Amino acid sequence: MRHIISLEVENQSGVLARIAGLFSARGFNIDCLSAAWSEDEDTSNITLVVRGDDSVIEQIIKQLNKLIDIIRVTDVTENDYVGRAMVLLKINCPPTRRLEASSIANIFRAKVVDISAKSMMLELTGQEAKIAAFIETLRPFGIKEVVRSATIAMVRDSNFKNNHNSK
Amino acid sequence: MRHIISLEVENQSGVLARIAGLFSARGFNIDCLSAAWSEDEDTSNITLVVRGDDSVIEQIIKQLNKLIDIIRVTDVTENDYVGRAMVLLKINCPPTRRLEASSIANIFRAKVVDISAKSMMLELTGQEAKIAAFIETLRPFGIKEVVRSATIAMVRDSNFKNNHNSK
Repeated sequence: MRHIISLEVENQSGVLARIAGLFSARGFNIDCLSAAWSEDEDTSNITLVVRGDDSVIEQIIKQLNKLIDIIRVTDVTENDYVGRAMVLLKINCPPTRRLEASSIANIFRAKVVDISAKSMMLELTGQEAKIAAFIETLRPFGIKEVVRSATIAMVRDSNFKNNHNSK
Repeated sequence: MRHIISLEVENQSGVLARIAGLFSARGFNIDCLSAAWSEDEDTSNITLVVRGDDSVIEQIIKQLNKLIDIIRVTDVTENDYVGRAMVLLKINCPPTRRLEASSIANIFRAKVVDISAKSMMLELTGQEAKIAAFIETLRPFGIKEVVRSATIAMVRDSNFKNNHNSK
């Protein structure tokens, strides 16, 4: 099962190397990872998407909680949450097909962020299934380039069930 | 200076640990990092934001090019590019202030993704300066939680200048 694990970590040199090293040493796979600064300048947020059965996820959370630079570990998928990824997508698009491409973008609530004589660049946010559907819908244009962001997630206030805290 | 470096890497176990370890061992700081799968199931895309003068960036690119799992290294900031981050933001928002919060969201082209009796969750994409302005504008509501994604970037077709390739 796919789990989204959110970490609050101290901004110490090498913290990302220690986390990635822990996964690598134990053979846990990371589907995707986003690391960015938080509101507090001393800490960063890291969001991991990992796959595994309950015992693997339990092990991952246990091991992460042991790392000294990690302030908080939350398995977001144990709660009701909003998960979002972003994609930048460049398609072949001559001027004659711009209207068609724009109308598909509108259906998905994507944004056109760049146009050249031969191509169009689009930005979309959503759950991974929506992003996959968007890319498939535009595939007939000819896909020049795709850059996906890692997923980030936040627990909904409306339906909070449980979380894992270390400190 | 701030550089956005885009990597195409082989999906080998431990590749993220080797990249993070390289930065940690040499004292290079990573501002933010996004790692996610690419269109090709054998490779992933990693986007790094790093700061440093020209000689530091040159060293980083040289060292990354030496890692065996790295297929391509591109300094996106040497080109005309689109850079985007995403933020999920939860603010205090009683029903009486929903209209006010929604109108700020509209100005920034943000999306309201969740509402509870006391709070509102919003999603915004944009350059980091836009995200910072959005958060500051909503700060008077009371910020409950912020999760930023790492920046991803794509070179514009319209104005391509230069790139670094390893293979």
